[in-house]
Amino acid sequence: MTDAPRLSANSYARRLTQAAQAASDAGVDVLLVTPGPDLEYLIGSRAATFERLTVLVVPAGTDAKPTVVVPQLELASLAESAAGDLGIELRSWVDGADPYELALAGFGADSVVAVSDSMPALHLVPIAARIGSTPQLATGILSATRMIKDADELAALREAGAAIDRVHARMGDWLRPGRTEREVAEDISAAIVEEGHTAAAFVIVGSGPHGADPHHEYSDRVIEASDIVVIDIGGPVATGYNSDCTRTYCFIEPPADIVATIDVLTQAQAAAVAAVRPGVSAESIDAAARDHLAAHGLADKFIHRTGHGIGLSVHEEPYIVAGNDIELREGMAFSIEPGTYFAGSWGARIEDIVIVTADGCESVNNQPHGLTLLPQ
Amino acid sequence: MTDAPRLSANSYARRLTQAAQAASDAGVDVLLVTPGPDLEYLIGSRAATFERLTVLVVPAGTDAKPTVVVPQLELASLAESAAGDLGIELRSWVDGADPYELALAGFGADSVVAVSDSMPALHLVPIAARIGSTPQLATGILSATRMIKDADELAALREAGAAIDRVHARMGDWLRPGRTEREVAEDISAAIVEEGHTAAAFVIVGSGPHGADPHHEYSDRVIEASDIVVIDIGGPVATGYNSDCTRTYCFIEPPADIVATIDVLTQAQAAAVAAVRPGVSAESIDAAARDHLAAHGLADKFIHRTGHGIGLSVHEEPYIVAGNDIELREGMAFSIEPGTYFAGSWGARIEDIVIVTADGCESVNNQPHGLTLLPQ
Repeated sequence: MTDAPRLSANSYARRLTQAAQAASDAGVDVLLVTPGPDLEYLIGSRAATFERLTVLVVPAGTDAKPTVVVPQLELASLAESAAGDLGIELRSWVDGADPYELALAGFGADSVVAVSDSMPALHLVPIAARIGSTPQLATGILSATRMIKDADELAALREAGAAIDRVHARMGDWLRPGRTEREVAEDISAAIVEEGHTAAAFVIVGSGPHGADPHHEYSDRVIEASDIVVIDIGGPVATGYNSDCTRTYCFIEPPADIVATIDVLTQAQAAAVAAVRPGVSAESIDAAARDHLAAHGLADKFIHRTGHGIGLSVHEEPYIVAGNDIELREGMAFSIEPGTYFAGSWGARIEDIVIVTADGCESVNNQPHGLTLLPQ
Repeated sequence: MTDAPRLSANSYARRLTQAAQAASDAGVDVLLVTPGPDLEYLIGSRAATFERLTVLVVPAGTDAKPTVVVPQLELASLAESAAGDLGIELRSWVDGADPYELALAGFGADSVVAVSDSMPALHLVPIAARIGSTPQLATGILSATRMIKDADELAALREAGAAIDRVHARMGDWLRPGRTEREVAEDISAAIVEEGHTAAAFVIVGSGPHGADPHHEYSDRVIEASDIVVIDIGGPVATGYNSDCTRTYCFIEPPADIVATIDVLTQAQAAAVAAVRPGVSAESIDAAARDHLAAHGLADKFIHRTGHGIGLSVHEEPYIVAGNDIELREGMAFSIEPGTYFAGSWGARIEDIVIVTADGCESVNNQPHGLTLLPQ
C-alpha cells in the first residue's frame, strides 16, 4: 500500500547475522519466521498473509543464506522489504504446491526448528509433521536481539513518545464532562495521527466505573464532572515503532481518599522507574511498584503486571511481571504502568515507556504524572 | 468497543454441540479454540488477545461442558459473547499463573488435542509440551460445521453481497481517469461503510499494469483513460459476515484482443458458476474455470486458485483449488474469481460469492459481469 520507511540494508543484514548466530548458540538448525513483528524486524517486511505460507528461512550459523518462501501472487508484498537489497533468494510457490517442503528443503527429518511466536497453528502443525516433533519457539533467540534496541530504534521510540505526549498535552481540548467516551476517543484518535503517528492503535477512555476495567476501550457513557478518567493511548510512527502512555484525569478535586490513593500510585510508578538499571531483574521492577502499593494497603487493587516491552510490537519481551527473572540490559525499552482499580467505582493508571541506560533509565514520556485537573 | 450483534444462544449451543460431537467422531478428546473466527463462530466472541491466553475448551462428546480460560483483566472482553447466556464457566487467571494447566486440567498427558488454525505458536508450543505431542488442527472438525451456513448466516451473506453490489453500482462516481488509485480507494472505502458494512476490509484498485498483480492494493498512480481497472472490494456487515466482489472496468473501448480476452474470462467465470452443485468436488469448480481459459490459450495467465470459502473469515474452507477433493454441499458459500494477468501490461478478474443450493448455486452478487464501461 505505502512503502514502509526502512532501515539500511546493513541494519537488517546485522540482525539476520545475529539471529543466525543466536540460533546456532541455542542448538537450533533453522529459524522459520512468518509474517508479524519478527519478520518486520529481520527484513523490514509488513507482509500479512495467513492461509498461504510466507516464511523467512534463516539457517543457523554463518555459512548458509536466508531465503524467503512466498506465494507467487504475494511476491509484490515483499517489494517494500529489504529482501531485494539483501540479495535474499525468493522461492515462490503456486496454489496446490507444498510450501513446507520448499521451506525445509535441505533440512532432514530430525532437524531442530524454531518458529516465530506468531506463526499460526495452520502452518506450525504441518511443519511439525514434516520434522517429526514440535518446533521450539524462537522467542528467546529473536527476543535476545529484539529486546536490545539500537540507536535507530531508540530514536523511533523517543519520536513516538514525544508524539503521544503532545496528544496528552492537548487532552483538555476534548475530554470534558457531558461528552461521551466515544466522542472523546474519536477526537483523540484523530489527534494521534495529527501528532505524527500513522494510526491510533488503541484508545482507552475509561471514565468513572469504566476506569476500574484495565482493558475497557470506550463506550457511549456520558462523562460526569465528578469522574476520574483513565486515558491510555498509543500507536506506531512511520518506522513501525509504537507509543503507549497513560495518564489519569479529573475535572474537580476528588475526595481526599481518592487523592491519597492516586498519590500512592504516582509514588509506586516513580519507585519502579527509579529501580530500573542494568543488571536487575524484570520482576524486581514489578515488585518495586507492587510493594509500594501493598505497603499502603492497595495490593489487591493492582490486578495486572507492571509492564511490557515495546518496539515494533506494542507488547513484547521483556514483560515486567512476577516470575520473569530476565536481567535488564542497556537498550531495553518497556512500559511501567501500575494501576489501582476499585470495581464498579473508579480506577487510575499511570504509564511511561522507559529505556534502560548505562546507570538507570530514560523516560520517553514526560507529561506530569499525578492526577491532572482539566477545565470542566 | 461495540457490542457485536449476536445470534440466539440456541444457535451457539447447537454449534458447540456439533463441534463436541465432531471432535468425538474424529477421536479427539478436546478442542482448544483461541481468539479468531472459530471463537466468534462458536460463542460469538471477538476477543483479540495475543500473549495472554484466552481459550475456549470444548471437551469431546456430550457429557462435559465447555469452559473459557481467560485473563482476569480480559474478562470484560467476553461480555459481548454468548458465554454468559450459555452458562459457560469462565476460569480466569492472573499474570504469573499457568493458564495451560488451567486449560488442560482434567486431560492427561496422552490426550488427543485439536487446536484452532489461528492459534499462535506462542500458545501451541506450551500446550504441545504439556501433552507430549503436537496437537492436531481442528480445521477439519470445525470447518465441517462452519462450511455449511445456516439460514441466519446465508441471510448475512446475502445482505453483505447486496451491500457490495451497491458500491460497484456507484463506481462511476469515483473511478475516473486523472484520479489516483488512492483517491478512488478512499472514496470506495467510505462508500463500503455507507452502504452497510462496518468497515472496508480490503480495497484493490489495480489500474493498467497494476491490474496484473492480483494482490496489488492501491498506489499513487494516476489512472489513464486507456486503462483496464480491477476493483476487488469487501468487508464485514454488522453480524461479522463478509462481502467480496470484483469487477473490471474501462473508460474507452479497449483493443479487440483485450475485449476478446475479457469475454473468455467472463465465460470462464460463468462456466465455473454453472458447474456448482452438491456432490461435485471443490477442485472440479477450479477446473471448470481453468479449462475454459486453457482452451483459449490463457492457461498461464490465470496464476491463482479459483476461489475461497467465505463467512466470518474472508478466506476459509472450502478452497476452490486443484487438489481439494472436498465434496460441495448445500449451504456452502465461496468465491468464484478467475483472472487473467499480463505482467507489466494489464489484468482482469471477475468475482462473485455463490451459495450452493439443492441443485446448483445462487450468486449473492448481481452486477453485470463483463468489462464495464464507465464515463471518462
